[in-house]
Amino acid sequence: MTQTPEAEKIIKTLKNVAIFKGCDDKALERLAANAHLQKHTKGHILFIHGDEAARLYLVQSGWVKLFRETLDGTQAVVDILTSGHLFGETSIFEDDIYPYSAEVVEPSEIISIPLTNLKTEIETNNKLALNMLSAMARYRRQQDREIEHLSIQNASQRIGCFLLRLVNQSEDGAVTIHLPYDKTLVASRLGMQPETFSRALAKLRDATGLNVKGATIELENLNQLVSYSCAACSSEFPCKDLQAAE
Amino acid sequence: MTQTPEAEKIIKTLKNVAIFKGCDDKALERLAANAHLQKHTKGHILFIHGDEAARLYLVQSGWVKLFRETLDGTQAVVDILTSGHLFGETSIFEDDIYPYSAEVVEPSEIISIPLTNLKTEIETNNKLALNMLSAMARYRRQQDREIEHLSIQNASQRIGCFLLRLVNQSEDGAVTIHLPYDKTLVASRLGMQPETFSRALAKLRDATGLNVKGATIELENLNQLVSYSCAACSSEFPCKDLQAAE
Repeated sequence: MTQTPEAEKIIKTLKNVAIFKGCDDKALERLAANAHLQKHTKGHILFIHGDEAARLYLVQSGWVKLFRETLDGTQAVVDILTSGHLFGETSIFEDDIYPYSAEVVEPSEIISIPLTNLKTEIETNNKLALNMLSAMARYRRQQDREIEHLSIQNASQRIGCFLLRLVNQSEDGAVTIHLPYDKTLVASRLGMQPETFSRALAKLRDATGLNVKGATIELENLNQLVSYSCAACSSEFPCKDLQAAE
Repeated sequence: MTQTPEAEKIIKTLKNVAIFKGCDDKALERLAANAHLQKHTKGHILFIHGDEAARLYLVQSGWVKLFRETLDGTQAVVDILTSGHLFGETSIFEDDIYPYSAEVVEPSEIISIPLTNLKTEIETNNKLALNMLSAMARYRRQQDREIEHLSIQNASQRIGCFLLRLVNQSEDGAVTIHLPYDKTLVASRLGMQPETFSRALAKLRDATGLNVKGATIELENLNQLVSYSCAACSSEFPCKDLQAAE
């Protein structure tokens, strides 16, 4: 079958997404039917919590924030996703509505695929169903860990943990970390008010000797940060689940 | 095939578990091969975090606590489960180890099934894979909500939310709530130290007029509790996900 350049690009991207691994070309072509690849500017809202769910999304580049809002207007950030991550896909199991809102927070290229394609394919393709189960189990483990950290780590330890997940954990010696998005977003990803975040970051600096210059963080070595943050975690360092993209 | 009375009882229970709905008798017999139904006393440890995973478990009656421990000895409660709930089943996707420990916290009857049975069945039975995906999506939504609540509800609101999930939410007028297990366990399920829990419960009592007598809680009507707790939640009351047993 001859593909448009857009469809070719989409299929090429799908091949590298964990849940589509091992799907043959025909299956990927069926999934990519009526898919789109679009550029979006910062601030673009893809959908709102409760909207009827029609498409699943895959971040090709950039960053997307998933969030919900409470009755009193507080925003709860569910996740902030980048290249290779899917969202909206579980709506095929959830009364066809989106369980959160999605906002583009950095200029992004995003693939969207009709949910009916996924639904039809998954009902007949057991390999895809098993891949998706495996991805969901991985995500569940990440959520378990997040719930654990929210329960038992203090704010400074949570920031330390966030930073440790950005570095090459097998590295020795001095380390430079670049925050992937702005500090206000990091704070809300960690469920903190900006003031709480600033205070906790200052406390973390005093405890571990890290050096903050805007969005860049320098550290003489990882050990102090590890012993400070990982004391309140049930997993061992290095973190086993770091390759866990969906 | 003639079944032993134990196998018959196990198959009867499996029929009522969401992920096995629609599986035919042959499939249930294959799943229940070498399954056991056992009674356990309070305090019995079923397995430890990191143990090689060999079986999945289903609570027939009683209560089981899933937990992890940090390097510094703090316990993080992952979940406390009762009749109809499965655990250990995701280990087929997780390097065959248990991602938490499991302890019986009230006298319980528990079914255990070899994980290889589930693995073999799921690889050939797309209906079972889809049921399991649906259950995982539901669980994921519950975890999302729990992460949201840990981020934005205060301790008193979290207790109120826990209580609201124990009542018939369509009821009008006076309400009596019985705690399902002891207060120390409720506190740890909510990620609180016992002192924090006591203070937060006293604050909730002052704010909503509820009356605490041991493990029984009385309330003149739900509205005050709803407006107090659900203000810091992105879902509407009544909670849509309450029927979501696995």
